[in-house]
Amino acid sequence: MTKTVLESKSKTVTIGFDAPFCVIGERINPTGRKKLAAELEAGDFSTVEKDALEQVACGAMVLDVNAGVVYNSNPNPNETEPPLMTAMIELVQGLVDVPLCIDSSVPGALEAGLAVAQGRPLVNSVTGEEERLERVLPLVKKYNVPVVAISNDDTGISEDPDVRFEVARKIVQRAADYGIPAHDIVVDPLVMPVGAMATAGQQVFALVRRLRDELGVNTTCGASNISFGLPNRHGINAAFLPMAIGAGMTSAIMNPVRPVEMEAVRAANLLMNHDPNGTEWIAFSRVLDAMKEGKDFPTASREAAESRGTGRRRRRG
Amino acid sequence: MTKTVLESKSKTVTIGFDAPFCVIGERINPTGRKKLAAELEAGDFSTVEKDALEQVACGAMVLDVNAGVVYNSNPNPNETEPPLMTAMIELVQGLVDVPLCIDSSVPGALEAGLAVAQGRPLVNSVTGEEERLERVLPLVKKYNVPVVAISNDDTGISEDPDVRFEVARKIVQRAADYGIPAHDIVVDPLVMPVGAMATAGQQVFALVRRLRDELGVNTTCGASNISFGLPNRHGINAAFLPMAIGAGMTSAIMNPVRPVEMEAVRAANLLMNHDPNGTEWIAFSRVLDAMKEGKDFPTASREAAESRGTGRRRRRG
Repeated sequence: MTKTVLESKSKTVTIGFDAPFCVIGERINPTGRKKLAAELEAGDFSTVEKDALEQVACGAMVLDVNAGVVYNSNPNPNETEPPLMTAMIELVQGLVDVPLCIDSSVPGALEAGLAVAQGRPLVNSVTGEEERLERVLPLVKKYNVPVVAISNDDTGISEDPDVRFEVARKIVQRAADYGIPAHDIVVDPLVMPVGAMATAGQQVFALVRRLRDELGVNTTCGASNISFGLPNRHGINAAFLPMAIGAGMTSAIMNPVRPVEMEAVRAANLLMNHDPNGTEWIAFSRVLDAMKEGKDFPTASREAAESRGTGRRRRRG
Repeated sequence: MTKTVLESKSKTVTIGFDAPFCVIGERINPTGRKKLAAELEAGDFSTVEKDALEQVACGAMVLDVNAGVVYNSNPNPNETEPPLMTAMIELVQGLVDVPLCIDSSVPGALEAGLAVAQGRPLVNSVTGEEERLERVLPLVKKYNVPVVAISNDDTGISEDPDVRFEVARKIVQRAADYGIPAHDIVVDPLVMPVGAMATAGQQVFALVRRLRDELGVNTTCGASNISFGLPNRHGINAAFLPMAIGAGMTSAIMNPVRPVEMEAVRAANLLMNHDPNGTEWIAFSRVLDAMKEGKDFPTASREAAESRGTGRRRRRG
């Protein structure tokens, strides 16, 4: 079975058909977060620290790190993004021991991140665009790491799922030319908003099955795209995630500090028989109980984890 | 494509691969409801009235009616259940205009219900047990109605999904001998509690796909069984329903007066492209908004439906 192995300093996370769904925390990303962007340019990493700790407490298994700030003082990201990526990765891996997902459209930032990341991070991302293939795949090979492959190419993002499948196939084949195995490619089939394209959900479910059955690859997506522009987005996301998991999706880049979505993922793990004895579900139910008493999700999650840790030590002692 | 057509006095509901998920309201059933059973024996139908109106307001498309009361005054259900079924069906179809699902293990009660039900009700149920096949299929043929087929037989309920599939196949074949087409068989593949059988979810998803692909039948289930014995059952049900719908499940017998489960069904309809323009999702979001202001789900649902009706009349006027 296909296994994509990620590592931090001391922990291993496997993305795979027989593993719990891999939640990749998306929060450490200044795109669309003006306040965070301004903080980072000013050398203030307090939000990054908070996001790292909260996301892991809430159940993120991997953290995405994106340093895509366009500095007011220097508009050239090829100069500013690599050193910021280095600083952010060093900070995050000093705080939490989970594998990282190095996220940039600037190849120099990917390489800077790869140079300092401990263990075996995930590179985010390559596309089917020729220039990206030629810049990113050699890095992926050099560092022997897995990579997210987004199924758009030089012609853009096709609305035809068959075209997106063929782009994914091309990336897998091109990676093979570099000696990168299919199990180190995590394909993002691209999730369109269902409010704009009524077939968006069905496209993803069908693509995920084909990617798994025909290419043998793991898959990921930006899950919340599905609900863009519609009311009560959490309700759509919370149905989309179990449906995608049932179709074979094995990871998502998402906000883990959202209890509705995390509940859906944990229930889907249970229903996929990826939660032996329901241990994780029962522990998560205690977090929800604590939230009913007024605690916020990160606090309730952290306290529950600490109490499980204490319980374990007690049993050992 | 497979279509199971149900009718009330003036409305048609189609269960099918290309139709919105069919929610069959389970509430009008005294099994495990001692207070309701006592009321019914005393000739008090107020709870039945309330359950009929609330379920339809909350989105039930079909109502299950079960008259399985064991009277204290007469322990023979073959005598007591048929007239009670008649009375309950006449009451319910006087209140609401939705197709009914006539639910009994007493063939005389099924026949009594069929004699008074308007339109084209669903019979619940036949099994693979020889005696049931021989008693129920002639009724189904006589009244030209669809039937729920539960995949257990004289050997009981198998834990092996392949055995349950073969029981379903046997029922479909036996029905064909009576001239009943496969599109009038709605198979219940039997949902086990995932807390007792870790593979329960995966079994159902695989069975639903096979039943659809190999037998071409619609499917149903007692959805809440999946979460029996576990904490935070609504969270499990709300992931199970979208996953089952994604696998091809086309109906469920469930409690529609539960907003979490109904939200999951409505989101799944949207994601399956069974909610043109997201009209139903957007209307449901308004119900959730009203609940945030303190209204209960049936009240908020009823008021939203009335306001949509008013809006339509206004546009016409």
